Amino acid sequence: MLKVVIIGSGNVAQHLAKAIDATGQATLVQVYARHPEKLAHLFPEDRITASMENLANGDIYIISVTDDSIAEVSTQLPFEGRLVVHTSGSVSLDQLDGKNRRGVFYPLQTFSKNKAIDFSNVPLCLESEFENDHALLRTLADALSKTVYSIDSKQRQALHVAAVFVSNFSNHMYALGDAICQENNIPFNVLNPLITETADKVNTLSPIQAQTGPAIRHDQNTIERHLDLLKDDNQRNIYKILTQSIQDNG
Amino acid sequence: MLKVVIIGSGNVAQHLAKAIDATGQATLVQVYARHPEKLAHLFPEDRITASMENLANGDIYIISVTDDSIAEVSTQLPFEGRLVVHTSGSVSLDQLDGKNRRGVFYPLQTFSKNKAIDFSNVPLCLESEFENDHALLRTLADALSKTVYSIDSKQRQALHVAAVFVSNFSNHMYALGDAICQENNIPFNVLNPLITETADKVNTLSPIQAQTGPAIRHDQNTIERHLDLLKDDNQRNIYKILTQSIQDNG
Repeated sequence: MLKVVIIGSGNVAQHLAKAIDATGQATLVQVYARHPEKLAHLFPEDRITASMENLANGDIYIISVTDDSIAEVSTQLPFEGRLVVHTSGSVSLDQLDGKNRRGVFYPLQTFSKNKAIDFSNVPLCLESEFENDHALLRTLADALSKTVYSIDSKQRQALHVAAVFVSNFSNHMYALGDAICQENNIPFNVLNPLITETADKVNTLSPIQAQTGPAIRHDQNTIERHLDLLKDDNQRNIYKILTQSIQDNG
Repeated sequence: MLKVVIIGSGNVAQHLAKAIDATGQATLVQVYARHPEKLAHLFPEDRITASMENLANGDIYIISVTDDSIAEVSTQLPFEGRLVVHTSGSVSLDQLDGKNRRGVFYPLQTFSKNKAIDFSNVPLCLESEFENDHALLRTLADALSKTVYSIDSKQRQALHVAAVFVSNFSNHMYALGDAICQENNIPFNVLNPLITETADKVNTLSPIQAQTGPAIRHDQNTIERHLDLLKDDNQRNIYKILTQSIQDNG
């Protein structure tokens, strides 16, 4: 059975650790955390370490820390020639220290502290320096998820930008909608079915096919009424730019 | 049983007509369409008319046409004193001709030609000139949907702007993500679970709480790598403006 060690205690590290621990096809032997108390609610003490020197033997070491710390953590590992991967969408494989066999194990999902996630629906994007290691990563990935992709560093970085648009920026559209609702004493949850359906549509239609609304209809009267109604300069500016972008790309 | 007449044959008119026809608690007596052939696949000939003069007797007349045509259609109705509503988010009640009793029956959802919708999950926003008519609209709305709101014209117009942000603009974020995927030979459907989860999160978290990504983390290195990678001026501009907006509102 594959022995996995996770290095990190943030959102991704915790969700991944729980998911690996729950599969019957890999063993989570240890989690490293600088602040072990962050993991105390998840795992018994003897499976958590705060010392690099005490890292257990594993087939795969997964570094799941902030993007800016990945390179440094990889140099601190007190061994060589083992399989070490990171989980970042935007960091290339060669940022990892070359003393170990390098790879990437990128779960393409948004993880929040207080919301459980079904890992079987999380796309896992794999990359490895050596072909044999790809098979190891694939075994772990298949145990966790229904959808596994081989994605090289260049593609993964593009995918990460695309993910910022479809997730971070969409969520910000929800935040702006929420602000407009609050200004007018409307409960935001009126909008939840619309948000769900909008996301659901692009499972079966392309986003271009799915586009509705005044911008794509070039309904100038409605657009002007909306701009009159928006008093916040930032909201007005975003409304104008996105309306133009929809009309230019539609 | 409530007798309903629908005037219009577009997306909203068709989805609404089918939903009313399917409830056991109201009767769709007739649909008016300038081009009756657009409805031939849905209803028998004797329930469709192309002549205003032949409009049947109904308790509620629902005008579901483009925003710009609502006022004109309402003046063409060859009767007075009946209950006439429109289905638009952005048109105020008093755009309807005052010769009839006026109201609004606004389904807050995005309707596409080729995608069925479960009307029981569509929030219905009601407004009426007279209190008695509100009860009539409420009876019809309750027969169709689990969520019914009383929303006045001013609130409804704000809600419509909010809907443009959370739906039309979010969908455009999907379109931009799709374009980035296509430029890098990545299948867009890799992003579908992320899109679904992002929408799902705001059922339980506020959008501000749910925000993740490099902008809200002020991760300047990743932001700059992303801007380097984006070659399209419009994509870069939108990335910068939304990153700034997330940081200013987070």
